[in-house]
Amino acid sequence: MARAAPPPELAVGRHAVKAALAAGRVSKIALATGTNRDLAAAAAQASVPLMTVSREKLRSLAGLDKNQGVAAWLLPPARQPAGWRELLAAGQEPSFLVLDEVADPRNLGACLRAAAFFGVAMLLHPQRRSASLSAAASKVASGAAATVPVVPVVNLSRELRAMRDAGVTVYGTVAPADAAVDVFAVPPAAGPWALVMGSEDRGLRRLTRAGCDQLICVPAPASASVASLNVAVACGVCLAVLTRPAACK
Amino acid sequence: MARAAPPPELAVGRHAVKAALAAGRVSKIALATGTNRDLAAAAAQASVPLMTVSREKLRSLAGLDKNQGVAAWLLPPARQPAGWRELLAAGQEPSFLVLDEVADPRNLGACLRAAAFFGVAMLLHPQRRSASLSAAASKVASGAAATVPVVPVVNLSRELRAMRDAGVTVYGTVAPADAAVDVFAVPPAAGPWALVMGSEDRGLRRLTRAGCDQLICVPAPASASVASLNVAVACGVCLAVLTRPAACK
Repeated sequence: MARAAPPPELAVGRHAVKAALAAGRVSKIALATGTNRDLAAAAAQASVPLMTVSREKLRSLAGLDKNQGVAAWLLPPARQPAGWRELLAAGQEPSFLVLDEVADPRNLGACLRAAAFFGVAMLLHPQRRSASLSAAASKVASGAAATVPVVPVVNLSRELRAMRDAGVTVYGTVAPADAAVDVFAVPPAAGPWALVMGSEDRGLRRLTRAGCDQLICVPAPASASVASLNVAVACGVCLAVLTRPAACK
Repeated sequence: MARAAPPPELAVGRHAVKAALAAGRVSKIALATGTNRDLAAAAAQASVPLMTVSREKLRSLAGLDKNQGVAAWLLPPARQPAGWRELLAAGQEPSFLVLDEVADPRNLGACLRAAAFFGVAMLLHPQRRSASLSAAASKVASGAAATVPVVPVVNLSRELRAMRDAGVTVYGTVAPADAAVDVFAVPPAAGPWALVMGSEDRGLRRLTRAGCDQLICVPAPASASVASLNVAVACGVCLAVLTRPAACK
């Protein structure tokens, strides 16, 4: 039903390469001549082979203009990441981020980075019509692609139903106009939980929305001059507030 | 000292064009054939001239592949936006977003959208080494470029000092490792205030940091697997928490 995404083969940019080095997943590093001496030293210390190339060559290797002068080839992860059922069974009270057809790779990357920052164990999204974990997404994720598995699922609403049946609290995020509960009025999340974000254009699909325990929103003040936030920004706000220190209830 | 940025000449994408139409700032709209009938109707209602072009032509007009089939030429704003001093003098207790050399136009756009969503009156950033309000930035801003003025300043630390002297509370955002106050522990912002975000690579510069009343951070749980958030996501979290409903203190 759910299977792990193939790991990205390349990490691009300083953050992403540093995180992959720290995770012991780099097989080789390419640096643009005269840049990133600290990463060259870190590679030497980790006995990772290093090649120095021209900026033009690095651009073609990385497939990205904005590469900060560094790219790394990644080893496959030591083992396939566990599914959400295995994480639940291990009794770790994991949290999950679910993206309902988020289509922009940069938004996927920024959501993944927010997930990693707020300790989310896994990102799930539909196999079809979702952004892929491309080099652009990994670059924006700044290393989070190496720490949070991205798992495509065939039927998202069926998966959410199974998660709820297994005891996961599912929060769905909608616009303030949709009369949802202000996220600041939701107690800090406890036990296993999942946050679901809708796509850039259409938000949550009808069946996805029906699969949620609670619909939440980021409140806007009366002085707001646009109606919505970027999906990765809204995702970060909801994760921050759901995982906030208990003193702020 | 501070002067208004020239207005962007083009709005690209559905959100941006809708917001510009609502603000009465559109001089002409270009639509890809057979798309965006709702915007064609809105343009007709507002007596805005409409041209229908091929997708290829629209791509070259907009200068962006992801244009959602629509672009609009903008009229200059009715008058130059007031500076922060004028807003303060008008007794409106405005809030400000300050970006200290944020370099990526998409990050500028997402920060601008968050500012508009949370009712921020103005965005200030250094004239040099800041992202410009390009078509890419305006597209990501989804209409916020038409509602929140972006004001370049010559000397940011001098400007911050002047703002503090005028009674603006200045919050600077740093990484959790920098021993700042958890943003959830800061009372909801009252009176005029400004939030300062650092650049993608280096965070706040030394003089900028010295110009802040209080350094704040977004707290990460022990399970965090990356050290930082994307600047626009961190900006959204801080704005959401500083403007949160007073019930959550």
